[in-house]
Amino acid sequence: MGERVTVCEVGPRDGLQIARSIMPTAIKVQWIAALAAAGVREIEVGSFVPPRLVPQMADTAAVVRAATALPGLLVAALAPNLKGAQNAYAAGAHRISIPVSVSEGHSRANTNRAPFEQVAEVGRIVEWVRAQERPVSIEAACATAFGCSIDGAISTAAVVRVAEGLAATGADRVALADTVGYGNPAQIRAVVRAVRAAIGPKLSGLHLHDTMGLGLANVLAGLEEGVRAFDAALAGLGGCPFAPGASGNIATEDLVFMLESMGFSTGIDLAGLVAARDLLHAGVPNEPLRGQVARAGIPRTFRTAA
Amino acid sequence: MGERVTVCEVGPRDGLQIARSIMPTAIKVQWIAALAAAGVREIEVGSFVPPRLVPQMADTAAVVRAATALPGLLVAALAPNLKGAQNAYAAGAHRISIPVSVSEGHSRANTNRAPFEQVAEVGRIVEWVRAQERPVSIEAACATAFGCSIDGAISTAAVVRVAEGLAATGADRVALADTVGYGNPAQIRAVVRAVRAAIGPKLSGLHLHDTMGLGLANVLAGLEEGVRAFDAALAGLGGCPFAPGASGNIATEDLVFMLESMGFSTGIDLAGLVAARDLLHAGVPNEPLRGQVARAGIPRTFRTAA
Repeated sequence: MGERVTVCEVGPRDGLQIARSIMPTAIKVQWIAALAAAGVREIEVGSFVPPRLVPQMADTAAVVRAATALPGLLVAALAPNLKGAQNAYAAGAHRISIPVSVSEGHSRANTNRAPFEQVAEVGRIVEWVRAQERPVSIEAACATAFGCSIDGAISTAAVVRVAEGLAATGADRVALADTVGYGNPAQIRAVVRAVRAAIGPKLSGLHLHDTMGLGLANVLAGLEEGVRAFDAALAGLGGCPFAPGASGNIATEDLVFMLESMGFSTGIDLAGLVAARDLLHAGVPNEPLRGQVARAGIPRTFRTAA
Repeated sequence: MGERVTVCEVGPRDGLQIARSIMPTAIKVQWIAALAAAGVREIEVGSFVPPRLVPQMADTAAVVRAATALPGLLVAALAPNLKGAQNAYAAGAHRISIPVSVSEGHSRANTNRAPFEQVAEVGRIVEWVRAQERPVSIEAACATAFGCSIDGAISTAAVVRVAEGLAATGADRVALADTVGYGNPAQIRAVVRAVRAAIGPKLSGLHLHDTMGLGLANVLAGLEEGVRAFDAALAGLGGCPFAPGASGNIATEDLVFMLESMGFSTGIDLAGLVAARDLLHAGVPNEPLRGQVARAGIPRTFRTAA
């Protein structure tokens, strides 16, 4: 058994939120069950946002309830504010993920708040959640941490300031997100190092997009800096509706292929993961499915060389 | 100015040899000129192989002659045997590239010889070329060095044996090629280290395919092992007609984007490179063009963060 790397599937949230059609709830739940059956142990199943803004996520409470019935699955849900977090708690989510843009422009477009106003909102969420009976993990993600299509380049110092602010709220985890996919491996290394120096093991993982084709190279840079948790979306779906130019997440299949080929252990069955694309396609038949492993087929050498 | 990394464009050879149509010679020459004008300093412009087997390469002598008229361009041509090398020399190629498969199965399919019979052929080519008046560089490439769709996994020891044999022939350079794109970053590191330990600076570069989506991650692994020369094909075209399952090379645009974003210097103008896709498309209009940089557009943050 190789060293463990956690892959969190965010397709049901990040993948579907930008889809041109709405996946029926029944298929969404079947798809999530198929991902869990393939060994995926963390899935971000939806977001608690206004249905008029993101109609694809209108059924998130029902999806969370169905997903929490699956054994051994950590069910995460995104919430941009206290109200969303309260809904996520009520639905039974195990982890609440809160986006906090480092860039002013994306922060206002995504949450209608300046970055440090959103950090303060995370503080209110932490306070509220800690006062409830059921323990829930809170992850805050520094969005646009590697560049912004609205504001341009983002300094490492700005990311560190937001990450420190988030750690100080008492959130359990702070992730770094390359929301628009502008990051490069040297930058990933530099920002991960700086943020870890500032907040230590609260740095929980990387959320990377493949806009420029550098997604898996950026994963490798993160791995080499000791990161052991990555978000990904099956078939490389994804993108932020409020970040112009953003495109797909790294493809979960390709990520798992790379990690397992390198000798890491993900606990995920690659063939089962590839097969789960069929349900994704059934649910949003007009979305183009990306990913090289599914296109080329799992090679005969897989897991024989490690 | 960052540290120099050499990008050798192999699209006119590796990209076109598997295309379903034949690019007219005039467009091929225009395309090569556009690549050179964008700052590409090494181009593999074709191969001296039997036209009945690879009809797309039938005009290679004419293409080499036209390309050698471009100022400052190193013109490489592939030749699988002495006869091909003699034709490459006669046409005026500056560098002759000779494929030598590490796997028995691909070696026989590609050159009708066992690996060490092909090493011996490289020896004959070196001897012949050294006896000519004009100096010509000879590069031998260890094909299927990271896996083979015919023979399966390839051991590092087997690669080292072939690389040592090639170095002993007196070839100037020995490259490592992931012909079918089965390699992973850990393997790239291990094989590069072992080959460098065996043949030192004769290890000249990496030729990587993106079959499984790991192409740029594999480049990063090579960079971290000190490799400073990479082959790539514009728009990610490519594949070996005699290697089942092989698919496109890493896309030159995406490679240059990554390298320049990381602070390396390629000497290549990214916008000019992306613009050269138009001539490629004009020459083989039915080939799908890949590459994320062209799809997403060059982001406004390019070269501002390094």
